[in-house]
Amino acid sequence: MAKYQAPLKDARFILDEVFAAEQEWADMAATEEVNVELAEAILEEGARVTQAELLPLNLSGDAEGARFENGHVTTPKGFKEAYRVLAEGGWMGLGGNPEYGGQGMPKMLTVAFEEMLYATNTSFALYPALNAGACLAVDSHAPESVKQVFLPRMYAGDWLGTMCLTEPHCGTDLGLIRTRAESLEGDDPLLGLPRYRLTGTKIWITGGEHDMVDNIVHLVLAKLPDAPPGTRGISLFLVSKHLLDADGQPTTPNAVSCGSIEHKMGIKGSATCVMNFDGAEGVLIGEPHQGLAAMFTMMNYERLSIGLQGLGLGEVAYQSAMDFAAERLQSRAPTGAKAPDKPADPILVHPDVRRMALEVRVWNETGRAFAVFVGQQLDRVKYHADDAVKADADALVQFMTPIAKALLTDRGFDATVMAQQLYGGNGYCVEWGAEQYVRDARIAMIYEGTNGIQAMDLVGRKLYRNRGAHVASFAALVRAELERQADDAQTRPFAEACKTELARLERVSEQLLARADDNPEELGAAACDYLNLAGLCVYSYLWLRMARAAAHGLAQAGASGEGFYRRKLALGEYFVARVLPRAVALEAQISAGAAPLMAFSLEDFAPEQ
Amino acid sequence: MAKYQAPLKDARFILDEVFAAEQEWADMAATEEVNVELAEAILEEGARVTQAELLPLNLSGDAEGARFENGHVTTPKGFKEAYRVLAEGGWMGLGGNPEYGGQGMPKMLTVAFEEMLYATNTSFALYPALNAGACLAVDSHAPESVKQVFLPRMYAGDWLGTMCLTEPHCGTDLGLIRTRAESLEGDDPLLGLPRYRLTGTKIWITGGEHDMVDNIVHLVLAKLPDAPPGTRGISLFLVSKHLLDADGQPTTPNAVSCGSIEHKMGIKGSATCVMNFDGAEGVLIGEPHQGLAAMFTMMNYERLSIGLQGLGLGEVAYQSAMDFAAERLQSRAPTGAKAPDKPADPILVHPDVRRMALEVRVWNETGRAFAVFVGQQLDRVKYHADDAVKADADALVQFMTPIAKALLTDRGFDATVMAQQLYGGNGYCVEWGAEQYVRDARIAMIYEGTNGIQAMDLVGRKLYRNRGAHVASFAALVRAELERQADDAQTRPFAEACKTELARLERVSEQLLARADDNPEELGAAACDYLNLAGLCVYSYLWLRMARAAAHGLAQAGASGEGFYRRKLALGEYFVARVLPRAVALEAQISAGAAPLMAFSLEDFAPEQ
Repeated sequence: MAKYQAPLKDARFILDEVFAAEQEWADMAATEEVNVELAEAILEEGARVTQAELLPLNLSGDAEGARFENGHVTTPKGFKEAYRVLAEGGWMGLGGNPEYGGQGMPKMLTVAFEEMLYATNTSFALYPALNAGACLAVDSHAPESVKQVFLPRMYAGDWLGTMCLTEPHCGTDLGLIRTRAESLEGDDPLLGLPRYRLTGTKIWITGGEHDMVDNIVHLVLAKLPDAPPGTRGISLFLVSKHLLDADGQPTTPNAVSCGSIEHKMGIKGSATCVMNFDGAEGVLIGEPHQGLAAMFTMMNYERLSIGLQGLGLGEVAYQSAMDFAAERLQSRAPTGAKAPDKPADPILVHPDVRRMALEVRVWNETGRAFAVFVGQQLDRVKYHADDAVKADADALVQFMTPIAKALLTDRGFDATVMAQQLYGGNGYCVEWGAEQYVRDARIAMIYEGTNGIQAMDLVGRKLYRNRGAHVASFAALVRAELERQADDAQTRPFAEACKTELARLERVSEQLLARADDNPEELGAAACDYLNLAGLCVYSYLWLRMARAAAHGLAQAGASGEGFYRRKLALGEYFVARVLPRAVALEAQISAGAAPLMAFSLEDFAPEQ
Repeated sequence: MAKYQAPLKDARFILDEVFAAEQEWADMAATEEVNVELAEAILEEGARVTQAELLPLNLSGDAEGARFENGHVTTPKGFKEAYRVLAEGGWMGLGGNPEYGGQGMPKMLTVAFEEMLYATNTSFALYPALNAGACLAVDSHAPESVKQVFLPRMYAGDWLGTMCLTEPHCGTDLGLIRTRAESLEGDDPLLGLPRYRLTGTKIWITGGEHDMVDNIVHLVLAKLPDAPPGTRGISLFLVSKHLLDADGQPTTPNAVSCGSIEHKMGIKGSATCVMNFDGAEGVLIGEPHQGLAAMFTMMNYERLSIGLQGLGLGEVAYQSAMDFAAERLQSRAPTGAKAPDKPADPILVHPDVRRMALEVRVWNETGRAFAVFVGQQLDRVKYHADDAVKADADALVQFMTPIAKALLTDRGFDATVMAQQLYGGNGYCVEWGAEQYVRDARIAMIYEGTNGIQAMDLVGRKLYRNRGAHVASFAALVRAELERQADDAQTRPFAEACKTELARLERVSEQLLARADDNPEELGAAACDYLNLAGLCVYSYLWLRMARAAAHGLAQAGASGEGFYRRKLALGEYFVARVLPRAVALEAQISAGAAPLMAFSLEDFAPEQ
């Protein structure tokens, strides 16, 4: 059965002891009022509300699913009520701009709350997750009147936002979209902006239609009549489900409707809608033809958020599996009975069961530190006064974002699969919940840019286009940490491992740049393995920092507090000994280059008949 | 949408060109009548019947599922009719003993048919798969009268068999079972054998109850009153759903009933039953307390069969994904447009998409060769007249069986996940079918002994207990092949790779044996990685053989036939360049030993609070 308590202790360790969050927040005007006490209070209340309201609806929400009838979507029983509790608690505007009613909390902190949302109820979590992204796009690119009308309602959770990108014939390649926007006579009276009429069909729109709020705010990619072809001809529009009166109150329905919802492998409580725009009224967000750039403002945030889906599901899968494993007795330990009074030993006596448990746990705990690290860089880009700090942070965000999205979701999925394996046959039966985590985690590798697209983004835009400048920024950060720990005997094995991985990343990057100059196919051929290799290097750096914090904590802790730090160090040793060796294989696979992939013609992929 | 044509060409290549099957069959009295023409006819008809009858019921069977009401199980619409077609076609007794109406086809051949069953409809395939296993146990261990009454009906498909092992509190550790068998007065009049009364509850009984046949034959593990504790006190019984009259016709219902069926992640058309034995009448199969040994007779067959589930699903997932990929246009090739007349290029122009496709394909094609190889050894054990040949084959069967079960299902699952990824968001939507393959493949890693148990079996019974004798048997086989190809310049890269992997397997095995002498936990700690490492070594050997056959075929083929051989060699080169490097990481992980796993106490696995 589902067992989950938000990992507050680990979040505190990462924020306070690894990343000195309070100091970080004090350094920036926008976050200077955030301190450890406030952060603590937010995380504790976040844990309470998600555990009380969302966790109990997870299994039932999957069984019931979102339902579609006559253009209306009904969310599973209890979702609406739980949503009201969260909205009234102010959780929809947690990271929002305080000028418009948001709470202005740093991403470094909100990632911990997002993880809880996904862990307790991924289907539910997607409604607020999309809203947060839509708010960010509006805040960054919309005219002032739009912000004033829409943001306070969206932060309050009275209205919820969506992102409408994909069309039936194109997802990855948005340059192919067909939805068109035409000028309408006369400005919008409330917003004082030119009006457009949008026509087209969008698919896979999360929360495109549902019963939780009175109004839904669609951000829609479309082409203006004079649009240049391809991705340079895409504009971004805001389309409100209802037209608004002079007071900004929803009135007549706009010409946008839900045609159907998808039947999916998982996230069944999340309504995935086909949205038909039949001349729907909307306003332009940002500059004409610059819609994709506007979308990319939110992409870095959303991609990290989807990474947190993988992490949250990995964590709840771990906790639930450990609850099962503690009770399940099968066979005896290889070194003799550990529970001789019982008919068999708990399965965790078996080394191979431990391997699965630690494999899940190590990706969760390292992933959590990674999310906070990326959150820190996002905050610096957004808020830091020092341009040099900002520029460094921006380089790191660019490089880390595709890694965060793909690695956290790939390893999150693996974590749910391995946690399911720990149950034996029970893991395959619906009532235990383990199989739902697998199904819910699977989509995270696909949406918000498939993990293959993330890998291509990494090797193409983030490595090749700047000739490795981002790698150099990261390397400088790692070297500074290695320097700081040069005399630390306790963390030496972690420093050695990190040094090895950094050298590998630099070597592989350099070789790949050289090969790609001759043949651009080399980038794609290396992409996925390179992302994983870079991820292992980043994780070895995070373990260096965590090991130092844990060694320090261990030295300070009394007997009652030492367990946490001892386990953290042991998990780090597991990482170095049993996870990092995979980098050697990745390097060899990358070295093999594009030739083995390109030896096949397009027709060669057809099944042999 | 599902796209599948049985891979007959590849099966032929493996049987005829790699393993010279006709010669193999001619060498054994039991199979001497099997020749290429007969094998071809069987495979072609098998392909026809599974594609026509089972494939169309796969998606609908998943949507509808098996249903339970008032103790009765209804299979999905169409299953019953399709089953009659297969049963009447003689497919239920394909590998069965001809003395009792079976068709006596060698396993080397039947693996290809089993793969088709699983590929076209895994839920359906499980009904005959369990029957084949039950028949084998009866044929090997039952008294003559039982064989005469039951086998002809089971081979004809009039009745179907089940295996009843697991109980709610024990699956892996069967020593804990509680189902008991007590003597009943008077012999069974039809069988002339002592009768027993069985009482207990069995769970996860595939096909325990359903509507496809008139009678179901349960093989049940239970304990006699004088049973020694643990696994040495388990006996095997046959319990017929209906008691039989003097002519062997089903009459009164026996005291066995279905209490419910499981709601599962996948294989929803397969009824997974809770079976209650309430003093059900049965007869003993084999010797008292020797039930587990009797079960193990069929285990080697069943475990390979479940491996074929992974393979079949990997193959149908590949074919369907390639069908999608050929039509899907997104973005342009890195070297410039390949389909300039279209709005974008087919996604297979992208190297990373090719990586996914080839990864799926290489595990499928190598797995197919592996299944035939293991089938060949099973046939030799069963039929070969020469005791030395038999003994060598037995050593190989022992060593290869856990690898076949775990590797084919682990990589089969990965294949379905990666094939699903190729569809982007469509892969997550039910109607495309890709997500069902993932759900259906997932169980194969769990049942018939979890893959962790397979790995433990490999390092414990198959490596440690005989001090590496099975590895030595395999190494001799590989060295003979290397010797045969010593002067073959064309296959030299494959020979080099194989030599490297054999040396690695021998080195790792030797080191592990030494470490395990000091600490038995070393075996479990290495188990999973060792299985994968051994698997890569076996696959490098299979590629050496396939490369030779393909190079020979290429030299003989005209222009129209050369494509197959060229692709085969290219796939082999992909395997060596981009798959085999993973063995290096596995060796390093094994070398890390048990310490990183055993540093945690049992309590340390609890989530941090």
